[in-house]
Amino acid sequence: MSRYFTADLAGLDPYTPGEQPQGEIRMKLNTNENPFPPSPRVAQAITREQIDSLRLYEDPDSALLRQAAAKRYGLAPEQIVAGNGSDEILMLAIRAFCGEGKGLAFPNITYGFYKVWAALFGIDAKEIPLAEDFSIRPADYAHLGRTMVIANPNAPSGLVLTPAQIEEILRANPDDVLILDEAYVDFGSESCLPLLDKYDNLLVVHTFSKSRSLAGGRLGFGFGCPALIEDLNRVRYSMNPYNVNLLTQLAGIASLEDEDYFRACVDQVCDIRDKTAAALRQLGFIVTDSRTNFLFVRTDKMPGARLFDRLRQQGIVVRRWNDPLIADWLRISIGTREQMEQLVEIIRGILEE
Amino acid sequence: MSRYFTADLAGLDPYTPGEQPQGEIRMKLNTNENPFPPSPRVAQAITREQIDSLRLYEDPDSALLRQAAAKRYGLAPEQIVAGNGSDEILMLAIRAFCGEGKGLAFPNITYGFYKVWAALFGIDAKEIPLAEDFSIRPADYAHLGRTMVIANPNAPSGLVLTPAQIEEILRANPDDVLILDEAYVDFGSESCLPLLDKYDNLLVVHTFSKSRSLAGGRLGFGFGCPALIEDLNRVRYSMNPYNVNLLTQLAGIASLEDEDYFRACVDQVCDIRDKTAAALRQLGFIVTDSRTNFLFVRTDKMPGARLFDRLRQQGIVVRRWNDPLIADWLRISIGTREQMEQLVEIIRGILEE
Repeated sequence: MSRYFTADLAGLDPYTPGEQPQGEIRMKLNTNENPFPPSPRVAQAITREQIDSLRLYEDPDSALLRQAAAKRYGLAPEQIVAGNGSDEILMLAIRAFCGEGKGLAFPNITYGFYKVWAALFGIDAKEIPLAEDFSIRPADYAHLGRTMVIANPNAPSGLVLTPAQIEEILRANPDDVLILDEAYVDFGSESCLPLLDKYDNLLVVHTFSKSRSLAGGRLGFGFGCPALIEDLNRVRYSMNPYNVNLLTQLAGIASLEDEDYFRACVDQVCDIRDKTAAALRQLGFIVTDSRTNFLFVRTDKMPGARLFDRLRQQGIVVRRWNDPLIADWLRISIGTREQMEQLVEIIRGILEE
Repeated sequence: MSRYFTADLAGLDPYTPGEQPQGEIRMKLNTNENPFPPSPRVAQAITREQIDSLRLYEDPDSALLRQAAAKRYGLAPEQIVAGNGSDEILMLAIRAFCGEGKGLAFPNITYGFYKVWAALFGIDAKEIPLAEDFSIRPADYAHLGRTMVIANPNAPSGLVLTPAQIEEILRANPDDVLILDEAYVDFGSESCLPLLDKYDNLLVVHTFSKSRSLAGGRLGFGFGCPALIEDLNRVRYSMNPYNVNLLTQLAGIASLEDEDYFRACVDQVCDIRDKTAAALRQLGFIVTDSRTNFLFVRTDKMPGARLFDRLRQQGIVVRRWNDPLIADWLRISIGTREQMEQLVEIIRGILEE
């Protein structure tokens, strides 16, 4: 920290993203990337003519992209804002709906960035403990008097609340916004987008980094009633209006127009996930019922830190946290079928050492 | 504004970017875009293989891009941070170096976003009046006890302070950071990057939106001593670490490696600018001595608002502000030679009506 850094933020503890190893790695299974490339239509959309038109600013309102998203999700463009990844949308939402006298609540084990944004903006943060089985208890979120952010499916547990359970939270908090981070919703759980018809205090957030294979393109969406979206745009236009670059807007449209490819990739990932989960359970692992593109696993046979290290020595990067509540658990992103079969064999070997 | 929007930001007055007309426009000369496309190497760098690799997150530290920039500017990679446009870098810097007890100072006529970021972060902002000829007086910035942000060349005046004048400001404020926004520096003025060797309170900010023809790609840089860059990264990792998408990192590297193309484009823009300035002066316009890719002009023959409207009726979009100090001035981005010759003839016609 330089001597010029503002004292306001001296205690800031920035987010630590999963490692992006640049060297030789056998399997990178630590940041929930998709094993399949984006739709071939993405490459078709990025033409020489479009690259030359980078000389011009892109549309800061991403109108064509929002139209494509509106068509796909059965919403109006006014219910949609596009962001530089879902991270940006989440940040804008936390800034827009929290502040003096309005804190933020979220599960004690969840996406680690929520607490960082709260700290950045000086927002009081309250962590709500998960149940012992890592599930979220909707009743714990009744009448908190806080803006809430819930990942559904949650990470790293992979567990899901039903739309009826989410509705219970929305109904119990008519004066507070629920930010619902559906980053992993495409991998076999039910989206709460239909609840937007009934609740003006719901903001649903999606990312194209996981199910759409566009992590390196940076694209996310916020969906809500027009007034909430206007709030996000108000903050967005006070931060960085040209947030989604032209090529990413084109990539997003191309992806949204290729529903068949999207379906096929997602179905494969889910199938590989379920088979991998079964194989790990066969090896004695405890595996949560993940509806995401990752597995959250633990074994009594070896501390999590040791298994993590042994995998790393073999060139396999997975994710682990030091939080004592989950220190023995590993989060493993779903790779290709071949990778996952190899991984199971490698883990079998490690356990037999 | 929804009823959920935080009261903290109720008074926020978001930035109004120059219009991005989506319909039929004859000449778009309102947001200082480059009339030439980016280097052909940019299209070569965006291969099918790279597009497929969008499934992976990009390097959040933009290491290869920063290496290319370090080579080009004669700096170390540790002195460089990349951003989603220079807007993001400026926002990070204002957040990092201002706060409780440390306000921000900037000229009263300059890039309109500085005051928006100050308001967003609750930072006390002081506007320092320009001299009557729109020049910045370095002495006005001595011992303010504030972080300072100065655009050099300034916008929309196009006027330049010399490195010696900037040094005067740095020396007078050893305990405060000067954020020097060199968005337009490539169009014929002297960069203050060499001053980084002597001053640890200098942050120089560049954009690839103007001289590098990558407005729609979103790329900017911050240059400073390693401690200042670390400060910016601290805030960046608390906001949106994956800020520069993969294709933009590749585009930036390709652009930096094509110095000849860059030089040729910039030289042409400067030549067209100077010839256009001379032609407008011939028509009786007052034209500031712009070292940018725009001209700032006024005529006694017609109010600025009327000339703006008449141009707009002919499909020509330029930029104008309602601030009474500059209400009669127009900012005209430099287009192609043909466009500028046409523009001068059209203006001649309007004045003769």
